[in-house]
Amino acid sequence: MAVGDNRLDWFPIDGIELNTLAAGIRYQNRDDLLLFRCAPETLIAGLWTRNHFPAAPVILARAHQAKGGARYLLINSGNANAATGDAGLQDALSCCQAVADVEQVDVSMVLPFSTGVIGERLPVGRFQLAAEDLIAGLGTKTWLDAASAIMTTDTRQKVACREVSLGARRIRLTGIAKGAGMIQPNMATMLCFIGCDAKVQQETLQDMLRAATDLSLNRITVDSDTSTNDAVVLMATGRSEVDLDQDLKAQAEFQDALTDLMLELAHGLVRDGEGATKFVTVEVAGAATDAQALEIAYSVANSPLMKTALFASDANWGRLAMAMGKVATPFDAAKVDLFIGDVCLMRGGIKNPAYQEDDGARVMAAEEILLHINLNAGDCSETVWTSDLSHDYIKINAEYRT
Amino acid sequence: MAVGDNRLDWFPIDGIELNTLAAGIRYQNRDDLLLFRCAPETLIAGLWTRNHFPAAPVILARAHQAKGGARYLLINSGNANAATGDAGLQDALSCCQAVADVEQVDVSMVLPFSTGVIGERLPVGRFQLAAEDLIAGLGTKTWLDAASAIMTTDTRQKVACREVSLGARRIRLTGIAKGAGMIQPNMATMLCFIGCDAKVQQETLQDMLRAATDLSLNRITVDSDTSTNDAVVLMATGRSEVDLDQDLKAQAEFQDALTDLMLELAHGLVRDGEGATKFVTVEVAGAATDAQALEIAYSVANSPLMKTALFASDANWGRLAMAMGKVATPFDAAKVDLFIGDVCLMRGGIKNPAYQEDDGARVMAAEEILLHINLNAGDCSETVWTSDLSHDYIKINAEYRT
Repeated sequence: MAVGDNRLDWFPIDGIELNTLAAGIRYQNRDDLLLFRCAPETLIAGLWTRNHFPAAPVILARAHQAKGGARYLLINSGNANAATGDAGLQDALSCCQAVADVEQVDVSMVLPFSTGVIGERLPVGRFQLAAEDLIAGLGTKTWLDAASAIMTTDTRQKVACREVSLGARRIRLTGIAKGAGMIQPNMATMLCFIGCDAKVQQETLQDMLRAATDLSLNRITVDSDTSTNDAVVLMATGRSEVDLDQDLKAQAEFQDALTDLMLELAHGLVRDGEGATKFVTVEVAGAATDAQALEIAYSVANSPLMKTALFASDANWGRLAMAMGKVATPFDAAKVDLFIGDVCLMRGGIKNPAYQEDDGARVMAAEEILLHINLNAGDCSETVWTSDLSHDYIKINAEYRT
Repeated sequence: MAVGDNRLDWFPIDGIELNTLAAGIRYQNRDDLLLFRCAPETLIAGLWTRNHFPAAPVILARAHQAKGGARYLLINSGNANAATGDAGLQDALSCCQAVADVEQVDVSMVLPFSTGVIGERLPVGRFQLAAEDLIAGLGTKTWLDAASAIMTTDTRQKVACREVSLGARRIRLTGIAKGAGMIQPNMATMLCFIGCDAKVQQETLQDMLRAATDLSLNRITVDSDTSTNDAVVLMATGRSEVDLDQDLKAQAEFQDALTDLMLELAHGLVRDGEGATKFVTVEVAGAATDAQALEIAYSVANSPLMKTALFASDANWGRLAMAMGKVATPFDAAKVDLFIGDVCLMRGGIKNPAYQEDDGARVMAAEEILLHINLNAGDCSETVWTSDLSHDYIKINAEYRT
C-alpha cells in the first residue's frame, strides 16, 4: 500500500553517470546493483546512521568519504551487510576493490552502500562477476532506474529534481531515496543519493547537506526504528558556472532547493511507508523550546494507539492527548489546543464545546491529515511527518526478513 | 487473544469489603462499578500517572489520598473521565459525594478511579442512582468480581494473592489489575488495587509500594503508550498481628511478597496485552549502568519491527541488533552477545558461527520467549516484559474508541 502522488520527473546531472543491473544478490529478475561514477572534480558530502550497530558499508563509506577524492558509489539492495563484523568489512572492501580494479583507481575512491537483510554475508563473487558490465554500461541508465534498483519493501521509486535559476545560469539537483520500514532516521534515511552540478567547497557542501537533512529526512518516522544502514550522500560535480561560495544569494537559493528536494524524497518515504494508508503531518506550535516541540511531535507520530486511530480514520483526540502527555518535559495541559485539519477538537485542555463528531470524521477520512497542536507556551515550533499503523505493516514485517 | 496461564486464586482481606454492580456507564449486561470500603484504621498508599494530561479522577484521588484518612475506593470502567477539565473534576467529586452522602462521611474519604474512553463526560446520575445499592451490597462480592468489573479491552481478570507466614502469624495480600493497551506505565499501571492486612506506618507503606512498583508495573510495556489514568493503590488494614515497622525481617518478607504479587499482576497485563500471542522477557546484562540496561531493554521491547518478528516467530537477530543500536547511550557493538532462550545468535557483535536457523526457529515457536542481551561492559542489569505486535492489536485499536 502507498499514499498519494508518485511523480517521477527527473533529469540527468552533468558530470554523473550511472548504471544498474541484476546481479542476483537476493532478488530474481530485477536490478539490485547500482553504480554512480562522478567526474574527477566532484565533491561528496555524507551523513551516516547513529545506530550503534552501523553496517560494514557505513563504516567503510564514512572512512573513504573522509579521505576525500571519492568518485564512485556502489550500492546493492537485498543484503544490508550489517552485524557482520570484520568479515563484513572485508566483504565491502572486496566489492569496492572489484570496481577499483576495472577502473584502475585506489579502492578508497569507491563508497559502498547496502540495504536489505541484516546479518548475512554479502555474496562478494556476484559483485566481482558484475563489475566489468556495470562499468561498461555507465551512462546507459537513468536516475529512475537507479531508484528502482535500490528498492526493498518499497512499492515505488522515490525521485526528485530541482533547478535553481540565477539569470542565465542554473544549478540542477536530482535525488533518489529508498526506505519503507525501519524508518526514523537519526542522521539520514536508509539510503538517499543526490547529485548536483553545483560548484562549492567541501565544507559548505557538508554544512548544506546537514541543514537540509535536519529539516527533511531527520523529521520523518514510519515506525520509530532507526536503520543500521542509514546514509545520505550529496555529490557536487562543479559543472555549473555558479560558485556557491562566492555568490551567497545563489547559495541561499541552492539551500532552499536542496531542502525542498529532500523534503519531497522524505515525504515520498512516508507515503510509501510499510502498510501506509495515510500521510500525516504533525505540527507542534507554541512550545517553549524547539526540543519540546520535537519531543511532542515524535511522541504523537510514534504512538501505536494514535497510529491505529489514524488507520481507522477515527478522530480520537483522547489518544492524541495521551500521546502528547506521555513525554518527559512538562507542559500546562490546560493551555493546549488541538486541531485536525481545520477542525478544533480541544481548546484549553478540554473538548471544544463546538466540536461535532461529523466534522472530525470528515477531516479524518482524507488520505492526507494535519494534526496541529498548540501549547500556547512559547514561540517554538516543529513539524514531523508520519504514516498510520495498519494491518499491512504487520503483514509485511511478519513475513519479510529484514 | 491472550497468552499463557490464567490463575484465579484469591482470598479476602480482613478489614476490606467490596461490591460491584452494573450501573450502565457504558457497557450493557456487565458490572462496571466497584466500591472498596476499608476498616477505619486502614492506611492507603498510592502512585499516579506521570502523563501530563492526568485524568480528573487521578487529580482528585491523589489530593484525597494525600489528606490521609481515605477509606473508600470508587472505580468505574467504560469512561476514563480524562481530558475533561474542571467539569470532569466536578463530576468525579459528585460521584465521590454520592458515596459520602450515603455513608455520612467527608467526601475526601472517597478516592475516585476511572478507565475507558477519554474525553467524554462521566454520567454522574448513574453513580448517584447506584450509590445506595453499591453500599448496601458491600461484602457480597469477591476480588474476582472486582477484577471483572474494571475490565475494558482486557480478555480476562488479573488477580493475585500472597501470604507471608511468620511462625504462627501471617500477613495476607490480594491484588487486582486491569489494562491491555496504552500500557507502558510510568509510575503505575492503568489501574491496580492491592489490599493487605499488614500493620505499618504510612511512610513505610508508600516506600514499599514504590519499590515493588519499580520492579513490576514500571517494567512492562505493551505498546509504549502511557495512560492518562494510571494508578496503583495499596490498602493496609492493620488487622494482622505483625507490625512491619517493628519487625524488619517481616518487613523484608512482606516487601518480597508484595513485589512478587505485583509481578504476577504485571505479567498478567502483558499476557493479556492487546492482540498478544507471545509473552516476552527482555533481559539486558553486563551494562555500565542500570539506566543503560533499561534504555536498551525498552528500545527492544517497544520496537515495532522486533515485535512483528516475535509475532511471526522469526528469530530475527538483525532486528534485535537494530533495536538495541538505536538508543542514545553508546556501547561497544563488538562486545555484544545475544541469546534467544538457550540459543546464542550473536557473539562479540557478529553472528555466532555455531548458530543454526533450526535452533532459532525452535525457541521462537514457544509462547514464552526470553531475549537475553549481554553488553559485557559492566555489572548492571535490568529486565522488562512485553508482548508481540499482531494483527489483532491493529484490529482492536482500529475498532475500539479508547
